[in-house]
Amino acid sequence: MSRDKLRESCQQPIDHFGFDENLTFQQRYLVADQYWKKDNGPILFYTGNEGDITWFCNNTGFMWDVAEELNAMLVFAEHRYYGESLPFGNESFSDSKHLNYLTSEQALADFAVLIEYLKRTIAGARYSPVIAIGGSYGGMLAAWFRMKYPHVVVGLRTFNSLCMQTYGIVLQRYDAGLQWLSSAFHLCSPLKNLQDAAVLKNWLSETWINLAMVNYPYKADFLQPLPAWPIKEVCKFLKDPSLSDKLLLQNVFQAVNLYYNYSGEASCLDMSETATKNLGQLGWYYQACTEMVMPMCTDGVNDMFEPQKWDFDALSEECYRLWGVRPRPSWILSMYGGKNISSHSNIVFSPPPPSKYRFPNCVSASGAIIWQELQRTQPEAPREARDSVVFSWHA
Amino acid sequence: MSRDKLRESCQQPIDHFGFDENLTFQQRYLVADQYWKKDNGPILFYTGNEGDITWFCNNTGFMWDVAEELNAMLVFAEHRYYGESLPFGNESFSDSKHLNYLTSEQALADFAVLIEYLKRTIAGARYSPVIAIGGSYGGMLAAWFRMKYPHVVVGLRTFNSLCMQTYGIVLQRYDAGLQWLSSAFHLCSPLKNLQDAAVLKNWLSETWINLAMVNYPYKADFLQPLPAWPIKEVCKFLKDPSLSDKLLLQNVFQAVNLYYNYSGEASCLDMSETATKNLGQLGWYYQACTEMVMPMCTDGVNDMFEPQKWDFDALSEECYRLWGVRPRPSWILSMYGGKNISSHSNIVFSPPPPSKYRFPNCVSASGAIIWQELQRTQPEAPREARDSVVFSWHA
Repeated sequence: MSRDKLRESCQQPIDHFGFDENLTFQQRYLVADQYWKKDNGPILFYTGNEGDITWFCNNTGFMWDVAEELNAMLVFAEHRYYGESLPFGNESFSDSKHLNYLTSEQALADFAVLIEYLKRTIAGARYSPVIAIGGSYGGMLAAWFRMKYPHVVVGLRTFNSLCMQTYGIVLQRYDAGLQWLSSAFHLCSPLKNLQDAAVLKNWLSETWINLAMVNYPYKADFLQPLPAWPIKEVCKFLKDPSLSDKLLLQNVFQAVNLYYNYSGEASCLDMSETATKNLGQLGWYYQACTEMVMPMCTDGVNDMFEPQKWDFDALSEECYRLWGVRPRPSWILSMYGGKNISSHSNIVFSPPPPSKYRFPNCVSASGAIIWQELQRTQPEAPREARDSVVFSWHA
Repeated sequence: MSRDKLRESCQQPIDHFGFDENLTFQQRYLVADQYWKKDNGPILFYTGNEGDITWFCNNTGFMWDVAEELNAMLVFAEHRYYGESLPFGNESFSDSKHLNYLTSEQALADFAVLIEYLKRTIAGARYSPVIAIGGSYGGMLAAWFRMKYPHVVVGLRTFNSLCMQTYGIVLQRYDAGLQWLSSAFHLCSPLKNLQDAAVLKNWLSETWINLAMVNYPYKADFLQPLPAWPIKEVCKFLKDPSLSDKLLLQNVFQAVNLYYNYSGEASCLDMSETATKNLGQLGWYYQACTEMVMPMCTDGVNDMFEPQKWDFDALSEECYRLWGVRPRPSWILSMYGGKNISSHSNIVFSPPPPSKYRFPNCVSASGAIIWQELQRTQPEAPREARDSVVFSWHA
């Protein structure tokens, strides 16, 4: 199937909700219309999330899968402050003043204005029904887009999950020297103090969390080049908890090495390389420090991590230190209604969050299943009965 | 019926949609709970519009009428930048920077946050269904509130109208001297030049428009103290178009004198006194210069005014000169969907706009019927079958 797409851009107000500064920026979007039925065939609209849109475009096989079948145009809209859609260019992240327009509300307004622009400028698109599609944060955006702008999108499909894959790595025990650890983990920069050891632990935790996000049933290269079912591969090294601490840690290295060095070409592992280098970490961190407050906690009983309570005050202090802003934890619920969404229609959440992974007072927001569903162009990926809703919307 | 109410205030972020400046202000609201059934009885929530909230509270008899019947709590929320709810105190209107947070989106967010605050802090209100009520711009806000925050309000009733009352005053002809006009109209400050004469004409036009808004079937004091059916009273002076110009103008004075001087106590008429002194003209002008762009026009054929075409560019220049901002005429349609509201539920528009008053390319946004419906505590005011929807919502 041809995956040709056009790279376009649309002029957007930097501030949809204020009129003091009348500045604009170019929002990037990608269009694939080779399967589109020009006489108002449907538009599948990807509500871009925290990263470069080309990367999401190449990893959202679901949309390419159904494009021909639905005679649909595909549009992938980049989220402001990510990829090339930087409102103030290189200055975009320079301070809280420049970051002030990085919110979900501004992003949704961009999408609404962009869709109207497309309908106005593309011949034959004026009455095209638009279906929003997104995963993870983009899935929230897709759902919120339908809630707030139902006159713009007829429906949507989100690929969201609140689950966290868990597996049996035991990491609570080590007392070996820093040098031994640096060597055992083939670290490019040796650990110098206990702070560095804490960084190592965080880096490992993050790796497991992100690994869960890309547990595809086929070989893929989303966050990193990885084999099919990478968690199963990783877990092969971690089957025996009765081993000595040192052996356990060496096995943990084997596991993490599979994630960062599947090609075998790296001579050492670099902790400054984040697990999600393609995602716009900086922007997401700011969003998590303002409106996207997602309480996270671990207890070592229901999960595999060291116990860590949710500490809002600490987050608030950290956010103020880093960005000069303070989070408003209840705002997103006021704005979008949380779970109280019964007044809305035409929203398909796929799959529903499995209750066994729900935490009572905090959530973790990654899950392989999201991207597995969205990627799906591989024959190994199960295709359940999914298109009926999409078909009925655009019929 | 007791109209006692409590005056309260709620701390609100000045900017709900940005995190750079974490400033807050006190939003005023009035509460009347003497008829409220404490065990989650309904809340009727007045979405304040462009003026002092006490004034709207005293002129919204509809809510007082039904409070006892519905065991409802009444809440009248003041719109930011009006009355006492000034985000920056006396500086609020000083420049475009301070005015930047005067938008419908910020006002709706205030309402959402306020309702959640009320439900959290008033014992027995946690599960109270909330019904939004408003008229004119407040009617738009009530409708938009349900559209954007359906998790906060279960439904609403708006009292909107796009009609303009027309009657047969002929004002196109005068060529008498400025002095004669000043004297004939008993003006406190005599007309000095043709610009002043133009101000007189505008002042008269505005008066007729606002008179239409308060054409109650009973004696009232909404914008001005007026007799019942004031338009009928005014028109008594304007029945004979065949009179000489001077007599016609003297009759126009009688008509306008009835509006500004019904008590008979004024020794002269003051053109600087606007027809709507209780409304926050300054704030509304800014809103009309940013997102609330409402094309107005007259043609002298379908209406009684001198022809005046809608000129967006002139408005834009004027707005820039006055406020340093430019209007975005399509934004409000992108944000709220215009007439495309079929995805929404539980919205009662009352009454539907009469088609004969619709202009093809522009609208005029005043109408007696709005405030007549909302005021309705007088026996003369017809009470049609109206409460069924309200009852079914809160049942």
